[in-house]
Amino acid sequence: MNIYDIAELAGVSIATVSRVVNDSPLVSEKTKRRVRQVMEENDYTPNVFARGLGLNSMKTVGIVCPDVADAYMAKAVAYLERNLRAYGYNCILYCSGHDYDDRQIAVKTILQKRIDALIIVGSSYAEDDEDSEKVDYIREAAKQVPVFLMNGYIHGENVYCALCNDFEASHSAVSEMIRSGREHILFLADSHSYSANQKKAGYEAALRDAGIPVEQSLEVYLPNKINTVRESLLRRPELDINGVFATEDGLAAGALKYAKRRGLSVPKDIAIIGYNNSELAVCCDPELSTIDSRGERLCKIIIDSMMLHFKKREISHKVYAKGCLIRRFTTDF
Amino acid sequence: MNIYDIAELAGVSIATVSRVVNDSPLVSEKTKRRVRQVMEENDYTPNVFARGLGLNSMKTVGIVCPDVADAYMAKAVAYLERNLRAYGYNCILYCSGHDYDDRQIAVKTILQKRIDALIIVGSSYAEDDEDSEKVDYIREAAKQVPVFLMNGYIHGENVYCALCNDFEASHSAVSEMIRSGREHILFLADSHSYSANQKKAGYEAALRDAGIPVEQSLEVYLPNKINTVRESLLRRPELDINGVFATEDGLAAGALKYAKRRGLSVPKDIAIIGYNNSELAVCCDPELSTIDSRGERLCKIIIDSMMLHFKKREISHKVYAKGCLIRRFTTDF
Repeated sequence: MNIYDIAELAGVSIATVSRVVNDSPLVSEKTKRRVRQVMEENDYTPNVFARGLGLNSMKTVGIVCPDVADAYMAKAVAYLERNLRAYGYNCILYCSGHDYDDRQIAVKTILQKRIDALIIVGSSYAEDDEDSEKVDYIREAAKQVPVFLMNGYIHGENVYCALCNDFEASHSAVSEMIRSGREHILFLADSHSYSANQKKAGYEAALRDAGIPVEQSLEVYLPNKINTVRESLLRRPELDINGVFATEDGLAAGALKYAKRRGLSVPKDIAIIGYNNSELAVCCDPELSTIDSRGERLCKIIIDSMMLHFKKREISHKVYAKGCLIRRFTTDF
Repeated sequence: MNIYDIAELAGVSIATVSRVVNDSPLVSEKTKRRVRQVMEENDYTPNVFARGLGLNSMKTVGIVCPDVADAYMAKAVAYLERNLRAYGYNCILYCSGHDYDDRQIAVKTILQKRIDALIIVGSSYAEDDEDSEKVDYIREAAKQVPVFLMNGYIHGENVYCALCNDFEASHSAVSEMIRSGREHILFLADSHSYSANQKKAGYEAALRDAGIPVEQSLEVYLPNKINTVRESLLRRPELDINGVFATEDGLAAGALKYAKRRGLSVPKDIAIIGYNNSELAVCCDPELSTIDSRGERLCKIIIDSMMLHFKKREISHKVYAKGCLIRRFTTDF
């Protein structure tokens, strides 16, 4: 019998059970009576998590992310909020945009909201140089509350990072594509974030390992909009490619539309790999092969680490989740 | 010369310009000097918005939404945050989930965060009966701060609603489908939210207007996952339909996959209409005809109304945006 069973039997959410255990004023007396009755009838003893951890805490976690309209970040934020709520934590979110000034202000502002910890979603907060002074404001924040970074790495005290090994995952996928006979592989990205740069480095390393020259003209940056990508590529008649490696599924879906419009057979004439294993990948026809960047896994690592940290346990500053290629129908290897 | 020009010339965001005008401690002295110099050089006089409106205000707007992983809500939240920031307002977000208890707690919790106004995104907060006591907690909240509801209607003082006319848009689209010769039209939804119920009512009214009986077996509720929809429909061999009207693009994309798997020609054998005009609609092949539910327009109405309200102007309690069918390649009318 665990908190999920109690919630189901009482017909409330796990967050409500947690609040009842903590005697929160937010829950009505009627609901409290019902939940307590179910707990008694089932001999349920709340564990340390359901009971709550800090006494002076507001039980609030701050989340900042550049753009919640991005599907990857939106899923991460939703997962974090849902699961932190199961531990009795509220979340407040601040969307910063991508500008450096605005990112700094986001972190300073959210620190004023009496939060117990800060989660930064999205790799555009991290610099390629992990010791860069540009992220000193994040190290400053970490003097007040523990900071958890999703998919980026910043070296600093009280800063804890969960990352996908984008370099290795990209290197491995592009290497497979090369072994399957493709030599002219387009790299498509929509930003220069930490994670996009890791993916680019993996792509270039795979080319170099195979003795294929890295060509600037094959590294293309476009907005992550399907039809924009299709149209932009169609405007380059000189483009002669038999593979596409994209840092986002939306970019890959655009490349797929381009290939079809050009009359190319996918994957025979051109193989395509996306990134993030999103609903867009499943929507494509043929369905898109894509790298699962393990967003939920990273969120879970962050929440588990945070709860251990609240219990004063030692936790790692850098934990990797292994990205892996989901093989669907735009690749044949 | 407006705030956008100043921001561009100074190489900062409009939010930063607004903060400089308000002499915010969040902006560095160096940046302030640069921005002020650009303003002087260009004879720029900040208007009332750039100057900020309340003196005792925290300049923070609270946003609650059930699920930010939903693309419609995520886009709305991102739009609201970006544009409120341009007026110098920070946003904090609370994702409540869909449970009634959790929605109540979300509203109570966010009110404690010193907000100037509350925006509720997503129609699952509204009841079909606009006077229902179940939404009294929202009327209570409106005694503290103005409440703005996106795509739902609640009758109450200090509650302001911006809605898409989902009933009319659905009625009109389904009527067109019927006039094109389809009589067996599947209604696909993933929830019983206020807006989903409006869409269902529009669908049923169109059938009744044409003298076609409404069949319970053709009103199907499924999770908004493409492959789940495809598989669920394939498991109904008795299903005999020549049209699909879906309340979400993801559901329509699943129906399209179903149709292709069944060897049906789209739109000849089966016409399909989605809802929300999302990136999924463009990703489909053929691209999906879909109703544009005017999310950005609703957000703009909310922000404009809020700014007028802050200036003590009268504003409407109910404003509609007109949804319209975007005709792509899954319809032939």
